[in-house]
Amino acid sequence: MSRLAKEVIEGKIKAAAELIRKVEEESPDVYDDMHYLYPHTGKAYILGITGLPGSGKSTIVNLLIKHYREQGKSVGVVAVDPSSPLTNGAILGDRVRMIEHSTDNKVFIKSIATRGWYGGLSRSAARIINILDAMGKDVIILETVGVGQTEVSIMNFAHTTVLVLVPEMGDYVQTIKAGVLEIGDIFVINKIDKTDPGELLQNMQSLISNRDDLSGGQPNHQIWQQKIILTSAMEQKGFDELIQEINSHREYFLEFKKDKYLKQRAGQELKDEVYSYFVDYFRKSFASKEEFNKVIIDIAQKKADPYEQALKIIESLNIKTKY
Amino acid sequence: MSRLAKEVIEGKIKAAAELIRKVEEESPDVYDDMHYLYPHTGKAYILGITGLPGSGKSTIVNLLIKHYREQGKSVGVVAVDPSSPLTNGAILGDRVRMIEHSTDNKVFIKSIATRGWYGGLSRSAARIINILDAMGKDVIILETVGVGQTEVSIMNFAHTTVLVLVPEMGDYVQTIKAGVLEIGDIFVINKIDKTDPGELLQNMQSLISNRDDLSGGQPNHQIWQQKIILTSAMEQKGFDELIQEINSHREYFLEFKKDKYLKQRAGQELKDEVYSYFVDYFRKSFASKEEFNKVIIDIAQKKADPYEQALKIIESLNIKTKY
Repeated sequence: MSRLAKEVIEGKIKAAAELIRKVEEESPDVYDDMHYLYPHTGKAYILGITGLPGSGKSTIVNLLIKHYREQGKSVGVVAVDPSSPLTNGAILGDRVRMIEHSTDNKVFIKSIATRGWYGGLSRSAARIINILDAMGKDVIILETVGVGQTEVSIMNFAHTTVLVLVPEMGDYVQTIKAGVLEIGDIFVINKIDKTDPGELLQNMQSLISNRDDLSGGQPNHQIWQQKIILTSAMEQKGFDELIQEINSHREYFLEFKKDKYLKQRAGQELKDEVYSYFVDYFRKSFASKEEFNKVIIDIAQKKADPYEQALKIIESLNIKTKY
Repeated sequence: MSRLAKEVIEGKIKAAAELIRKVEEESPDVYDDMHYLYPHTGKAYILGITGLPGSGKSTIVNLLIKHYREQGKSVGVVAVDPSSPLTNGAILGDRVRMIEHSTDNKVFIKSIATRGWYGGLSRSAARIINILDAMGKDVIILETVGVGQTEVSIMNFAHTTVLVLVPEMGDYVQTIKAGVLEIGDIFVINKIDKTDPGELLQNMQSLISNRDDLSGGQPNHQIWQQKIILTSAMEQKGFDELIQEINSHREYFLEFKKDKYLKQRAGQELKDEVYSYFVDYFRKSFASKEEFNKVIIDIAQKKADPYEQALKIIESLNIKTKY
């Protein structure tokens, strides 16, 4: 076993940080480490918190960290931040809660930003979850924005997903309608001290009661009943209820959803790994050549087209089977 | 030249619809058609409208369609909808404006939904834009949600990007802070009849005046000055100003930004085509085999890991060069 993998499994923070840094740099060196780590994963509870920027989901994450720490549990946080296309980095920068918990060595917070291409973010998130899991974190909190293809797909890694809304986002819910039900296992309407949640609450309740039968023929007791919880960080309201509901879903997950989840997640991780390997390979070999830049200029000037050029490149890569 | 490509270039709606359907089905048959079309692209003005669900961006798109039609221009719309992971389709379904303009054969509206994997959506959007461009649309309006990695990256295809906000989204802007400046060339604060835009307007103005120097050493007159426009569909306010601002940016784009845009877009299209080809190939050959499902079950049961298995698969594909 590699030195790094061994130390991560022993729970060493420095080793975990080092391996995560390598994952973020998309280093090809991590395969061995990840391979040795993998059998040690699967013990952590993965809790997803999703919501639009401004919904106060970071405050909720902070309260959840406190709760789990009070229970003596160790916590990892993976926060996927909306990134800036110009700076190639995270927009949010340092987070308040990172400072608040920075002296607690049982809390490991990692903020990852979108980069380059699409599957890469999903691969990094899954790898970092596995590192935190293997190092022995009891709970891993996964935080993303509640909209966007990549971001919604990363939420598939969570056992339980909490969607955080605020009363002002009534129009958001009206626009995506029933789709909102598919994003969360539990719904939170946050900041109820600021604006009356009445209208949004009513809309959400009517969506839930009118929802199509998505059970796929499962017996009734195997269907999760989605609930709406009203919270206010300012008035310290609703968080006990939220934690209770999260615990209920965890029990439901373990009994009825885990097997399906594990298979689905294995498929997503394997595909992300294969696609990302190809993209890495292509970027580091072909796309770094002068030849590639010439092709791009030809396409920009309409002397060539991206379709024929893509086929030529694929052919030159000599992949065994053509479909 | 293929029959379909020829008819698209002649502006035939039925042919364009047929080719777009093939693109959406990710048919491998489209390469020839797209190859023939490509030299006929590059004439349309591509206008991006982005904003969170509930910001009223569809209403703005509708008003813009009307404006361009009154000017005698033909319009294409590509709307990227947040999709439902469960139904694999668009959440929004039929759009009001689709009915409103459905009898006008100079307006072609195509709603595309997120599917399967990440790069695929970007490839489909670029191909559909090129089809609408080649068929002679004067203006192509590209609509996406204003957050999410894939969605923000698709906005790179637009010449001008309008970010639509509503006064209630002050917290959204506060959270992503300066990042918001990188999303739009023009900012709209919509629905000002509903809520006082004062606070959001002030925050946006202070962001703009404090923005870092992103000019990269360009002379001052080559830097676009971002503006904020207040609109209300209900009170018919602000749209003339918005159109004026869009026209100003178009002039700026043609003079100072076009060359860089064309190169950047050519690169993105070529990479999307190469990556997506690989993903399609993998899905249709390897991932459809019984063998692949066995591997997934082994991974789910921790008898195998996604890292070693991914390397094995890549090796079996026999790609020429390893990096």
